[in-house]
Amino acid sequence: MRAIDIIIKKRSKFELTKREISFMVQNYVNNIITDYQMSSFLMACFLNGLNNVETSYLTKEMIMSGDRYDLSKLEKYCLIDKHSTGGVGDKTSLILAPIASYFNLKVPMMSGRGLGHTGGTLDKLESIKGYKVLFNQEKFINIISECGYVMVGQTDDIVPADKKIYALRDASGTVESIPLLTSSILSKKVAEGAKNLVMDVKMGSGAFMKEHKDAFKLAESIIKTSKELGLNTRALITDMSNPLGRNVGNFLEVKECIEIIDPNIFKEFWTYQKKNLTYTYKGLSSDLMIISIELASHMLMMCNKARDKIEAQDMIIKAIENGNVLDIFYKNVELQGGDLSRLKRDLQERSSPYKYQLLAEKDGYIKDIDAYKIGAAAVLLKAGRDKKNDIIDYDSGIVFFKKKEDFVKKGETILEIHAKKEKHIENSLPLIKVAITITDNNKDISPFLGVIEELINF
Amino acid sequence: MRAIDIIIKKRSKFELTKREISFMVQNYVNNIITDYQMSSFLMACFLNGLNNVETSYLTKEMIMSGDRYDLSKLEKYCLIDKHSTGGVGDKTSLILAPIASYFNLKVPMMSGRGLGHTGGTLDKLESIKGYKVLFNQEKFINIISECGYVMVGQTDDIVPADKKIYALRDASGTVESIPLLTSSILSKKVAEGAKNLVMDVKMGSGAFMKEHKDAFKLAESIIKTSKELGLNTRALITDMSNPLGRNVGNFLEVKECIEIIDPNIFKEFWTYQKKNLTYTYKGLSSDLMIISIELASHMLMMCNKARDKIEAQDMIIKAIENGNVLDIFYKNVELQGGDLSRLKRDLQERSSPYKYQLLAEKDGYIKDIDAYKIGAAAVLLKAGRDKKNDIIDYDSGIVFFKKKEDFVKKGETILEIHAKKEKHIENSLPLIKVAITITDNNKDISPFLGVIEELINF
Repeated sequence: MRAIDIIIKKRSKFELTKREISFMVQNYVNNIITDYQMSSFLMACFLNGLNNVETSYLTKEMIMSGDRYDLSKLEKYCLIDKHSTGGVGDKTSLILAPIASYFNLKVPMMSGRGLGHTGGTLDKLESIKGYKVLFNQEKFINIISECGYVMVGQTDDIVPADKKIYALRDASGTVESIPLLTSSILSKKVAEGAKNLVMDVKMGSGAFMKEHKDAFKLAESIIKTSKELGLNTRALITDMSNPLGRNVGNFLEVKECIEIIDPNIFKEFWTYQKKNLTYTYKGLSSDLMIISIELASHMLMMCNKARDKIEAQDMIIKAIENGNVLDIFYKNVELQGGDLSRLKRDLQERSSPYKYQLLAEKDGYIKDIDAYKIGAAAVLLKAGRDKKNDIIDYDSGIVFFKKKEDFVKKGETILEIHAKKEKHIENSLPLIKVAITITDNNKDISPFLGVIEELINF
Repeated sequence: MRAIDIIIKKRSKFELTKREISFMVQNYVNNIITDYQMSSFLMACFLNGLNNVETSYLTKEMIMSGDRYDLSKLEKYCLIDKHSTGGVGDKTSLILAPIASYFNLKVPMMSGRGLGHTGGTLDKLESIKGYKVLFNQEKFINIISECGYVMVGQTDDIVPADKKIYALRDASGTVESIPLLTSSILSKKVAEGAKNLVMDVKMGSGAFMKEHKDAFKLAESIIKTSKELGLNTRALITDMSNPLGRNVGNFLEVKECIEIIDPNIFKEFWTYQKKNLTYTYKGLSSDLMIISIELASHMLMMCNKARDKIEAQDMIIKAIENGNVLDIFYKNVELQGGDLSRLKRDLQERSSPYKYQLLAEKDGYIKDIDAYKIGAAAVLLKAGRDKKNDIIDYDSGIVFFKKKEDFVKKGETILEIHAKKEKHIENSLPLIKVAITITDNNKDISPFLGVIEELINF
């Protein structure tokens, strides 16, 4: 068997066998197949596709390239994870993991770092002083056992094939491939020990998948491949055309999450939300809450903790209102090495040295806040990474005072930019300005779509 | 400008600009773009194609990556070359270059080495003791001036982009791409100084292009791109389903060429050929002669030495019959450093130590001699290369006693295998046996098609 023949076979649109896929993955991980052969192979896979059988072979082969966490100690619990394809201001993991944990679900969550316009869960959590995201298996299991969830990064021993292949895809233009994305996501979920998965497939300008047809294909591929892997998976396609929530930027997003699960703030917010009075109340934005509760509801339903979404939602709201969710969040912070008293102080005091308020130049309704442009602006503010090894500034970012559909008066603040240096504000401002569209007429605004589609039994 | 964006642009089926193509080629040659980015780019070009404008930009950029021979000293002559896409037993260059030279055409011919099942002109010529194929520009021009043609390899200074890109394509599965083949072929033709080109696009099992539609596309692409480059090009699509001529193997092919242009042998052969009595007479096979004369005729017509093909053919036959063509061949051998008296002795005496005659197992007609299998068998006999750095044995190969449409009696010799070691014969024999098909009925044999199509004014 030769790599060149397998490349040519895929280039010529033939289906690859299990042995051929195994040959490519194993030999690439062992440095026998070169980067240039692998990148040519990946481009052939990108353009000619892999069917569901090939994708599941690829995923299995990737899983076998490294260790698999043994969570048999936790097998009496419902082991479940949520994964998002990435967005701007997407911080639902921080909200739903403590929710799920409160209901005795166990969440072994392996996340990534931000790259390009999309943020990463690990970066957000590491903005909490002391918070650690790399543990050995024993500690990994202990944290889950104690607080119900753990948030970790991919160690070198977990799916090394994915690490190596993903870095190459990133450099050679083959990231946005349905089968390659599928295998990358699912290999890590199986290796971390999850048995159930709620997949949040983001769709819109701030997402990988701009169009519904692509988001649907990815969701379909993930569900079908999950079946082959024995992973019970549901997928939700959700709106990522505008940034999710109020804040974009790492510590700003942590702060927003803590506020949203703070019983006092939440209660008042939820009262307003139920009346549908406004999307943004006291700076909390309901879009984030809607998506977080939807995803958490599916987790409860999949683990047979709730019969339907109404029941699940009631349970979740009560748990937040009682302060149980926030307690678990804080417990997790401590278990993962975070300095809790410092965090509580930081929530009050910590801030960027430079701030700039963008004011409305005329009266009107916010028609659109382009998530892609905001994500790219966050990179210019050093809240995100342009290249993998860029160092990020945890405090910088953007705080929205107004969101889509909100009315804004001339001179009123639309958003506030937080930055470490004045020139970062200068760099990002033009992009932020063009991201915002204001209209006279609130009739031509497409509302926040929330969950666009649910793929449950497929 | 970034390589990754250009890769993604081509991956997404957009047309590339001159600047983008220039960026890729220049930075790859200068080792700024990595092999793995380039191979991914080449696979995207392979699968999504390059249009004629993009192909001509690529070709021009490749030409500019190195030196161009200055043949202004020869500008009063018609500077013409012939190029073949490669086949099995394809040795027409050795025959038509001295023919063209006799009629005062000047032929600066840059050829390649054999790889895989196809042979290479340089290997054939280097089987002549002392024959050299690398010269500086001065010597290059001197040889053309003195005997009318020169046969050289690609030096490091001529189209270095092609050398580097071709090696990568070979290793990463992107060889058989119409635009990439076009740019590779034409960049060298323009750089060597040719103004006119007859392109022999081989079609059939022994060729790159197995199907007519692919051969036609390549011919079309070469002609259209030639126009953009100011190169006057005609293309012939010719039959490469069976090996061309009597011999396959380097020195064996040189020998066959010398016999075919030997006036005494040719005269008798041509008498029979005109009567259409048989395809193989005294071991000389008319298919090679037909293709060689066709190609040479087009060269004469393009350079206004003959009005039509009939006139050209008459001129060519006379030149061979008078011994003028053989004289020029020998003159070229001496000018390129070959030992002529040694060559003449070798023609009589030199031979492989091991020979094996394959005999017919039953009476019948030869229906097919699969060129691909014969080419692959030649590699097993060490007459060809499996990998670029393999050392080849110049004397080994296959001599056909019978060709397609010939009748063969049980026990009669179909072909003779020549090899340096007995085990090479053992290795190649099974493949050679399955390459030969014999039938009872001579009605279902598709004849040698010769020139299948001529693309002249396109």
